[in-house]
Amino acid sequence: MATYLSGIQPSGLQHLGNYFGAIRQHLSLQEQEGEHYYFIADFHALTTVQDPEKLREYVRETAITYLALGLDPEKAVLWRQSDVPEVQEIAWLLSTVTGMGLLERAHSFKDKVAKGVKPHVGLFTYPLLMAADILAYDATHVPVGKDQVQHVEMTQTMAGYFNNTFADVFVRPECLLPKMGAAQKVPGLDGQKMSKSYANTVWIFEEGKKLKKRLGKIVTDSRPPEEPKNPADLFLFDLLALFLPETDLQEWKEKVEAGGTDAPGYGHLKIAIFEAMEAYFAPARARRLELLADIAEVDRILAKGADRARERASVVRDRAYAACGLR
Amino acid sequence: MATYLSGIQPSGLQHLGNYFGAIRQHLSLQEQEGEHYYFIADFHALTTVQDPEKLREYVRETAITYLALGLDPEKAVLWRQSDVPEVQEIAWLLSTVTGMGLLERAHSFKDKVAKGVKPHVGLFTYPLLMAADILAYDATHVPVGKDQVQHVEMTQTMAGYFNNTFADVFVRPECLLPKMGAAQKVPGLDGQKMSKSYANTVWIFEEGKKLKKRLGKIVTDSRPPEEPKNPADLFLFDLLALFLPETDLQEWKEKVEAGGTDAPGYGHLKIAIFEAMEAYFAPARARRLELLADIAEVDRILAKGADRARERASVVRDRAYAACGLR
Repeated sequence: MATYLSGIQPSGLQHLGNYFGAIRQHLSLQEQEGEHYYFIADFHALTTVQDPEKLREYVRETAITYLALGLDPEKAVLWRQSDVPEVQEIAWLLSTVTGMGLLERAHSFKDKVAKGVKPHVGLFTYPLLMAADILAYDATHVPVGKDQVQHVEMTQTMAGYFNNTFADVFVRPECLLPKMGAAQKVPGLDGQKMSKSYANTVWIFEEGKKLKKRLGKIVTDSRPPEEPKNPADLFLFDLLALFLPETDLQEWKEKVEAGGTDAPGYGHLKIAIFEAMEAYFAPARARRLELLADIAEVDRILAKGADRARERASVVRDRAYAACGLR
Repeated sequence: MATYLSGIQPSGLQHLGNYFGAIRQHLSLQEQEGEHYYFIADFHALTTVQDPEKLREYVRETAITYLALGLDPEKAVLWRQSDVPEVQEIAWLLSTVTGMGLLERAHSFKDKVAKGVKPHVGLFTYPLLMAADILAYDATHVPVGKDQVQHVEMTQTMAGYFNNTFADVFVRPECLLPKMGAAQKVPGLDGQKMSKSYANTVWIFEEGKKLKKRLGKIVTDSRPPEEPKNPADLFLFDLLALFLPETDLQEWKEKVEAGGTDAPGYGHLKIAIFEAMEAYFAPARARRLELLADIAEVDRILAKGADRARERASVVRDRAYAACGLR
């Protein structure tokens, strides 16, 4: 039977890029036959978040975000990574069979060093922990974006090292790449890819005045509304496209293309995005408020998830320990 | 109150160099006021031992060796490192505040690379785990040889990084260097320092014909017994000195110095070492046989030690998790 596993970075509040780029696909998977594992990667978040209050907030909000957006604890296991110490134990085992060279070739490490991030050891050994996260649950399918493919390949390599050195312990995981059609372009406020590193994000649960103000920052040009424009040049439409049905979207585009006194200005389009986004996330927002009012229920779900995850990880850990002689 | 902590490498069977260089001092410490922690570093051993049968044997023999030589489970906690996953959790925390440069400067890593050992990641991150081993128990005193001082200094540095980043969580440990008078020279069979890497060791519990044969390999020269010799030139006497009272040793030396028909040959001296060593370890050897016949008792001691060690380490882990926001 297939086992799907997804890790979620709680290194900030989830934004539209996270939702349309990953969360939505993650959540649609739980309808597939098989087992479903979702963990909140708080150990990993420590490599970038060094504010304990923030980390606690991000972890809590990440759990609530997934639950509010439809993660079903009956169908899927949701837990905090740090509730399963077995992943650190397995990461150590992998470190004793993995050459320095493999980690030195990791894009994530090279990129961060190139960006001038002072490298600490956690940034370097990160792929070992990520491999352990996958191998600890005998995951067979790991849904990833293109930028994460290398990590799954490294996991395959490390699993091979260990299995060849000792015995067939770890299951080889495969990448599950999103279908090309499914991926939607999510521009940030400045038109670049929406990403925390560009500070151009919109939080999924932003609302009301704050959301209006945030969307007001979408970068536009100085052409007047009357001037006919090519909608393909306006990334505003990429944002609107996330929320509106195709026919409604088409109507807006035609008006902008025609220009004249009936044509909407940029301000109008921003309001349209605002209204469409508020409507789109309204049910999730309501569910989020319920969960915020009952944090104990969230904690119960995470605790139950941790129990189920540990049950599975400890079996794999025991298998690995027996193979290498630690038991 | 002082907390003494010693790690024991189960990467082979303990030899005379281990005994006179470390084990004896370790064991004498348990008589001091304070708490005493001794762990068998099986996680670390995985960096050099990749044979599961061997690792199991070495871990078992290491426990038996310490117990047979006098470790008192009432006074000291003895456990297997891998029974306390908290050390891996703490090692991860340290990795997120420790720069690559610190680990790159570790002698143990540089030496192994210089010796042509293909570096795997475990050899590189070893000092993180060693620091976690010390910090997890709030150890105040770490008895070490000169070659291990750097590891304790690195531990102090890492503890400082974490405490400065988050809060005062980790206790700063101090080195406990053996008094110079206490250190005895332990030559191997070839006269170099006795060390597993030189394959010149004598196992503490070797006995009978096998021990005789082993000691027969002590390298000597071709001078006849009658020829007077300076005992200071003969490392045979350094071995004999480990076991014999000063007056008996002096007698042997005088005979060799005088030469003539009464002087003992090298063979005689080897027999003297054999007899002195057999007598010296006779009580420990008897105790070892008892323990071998009751492995369940050894397992009980290790399990009880693991419980006590985990109890302590989990308090420190919880303190660290609260400080960095994982709880």
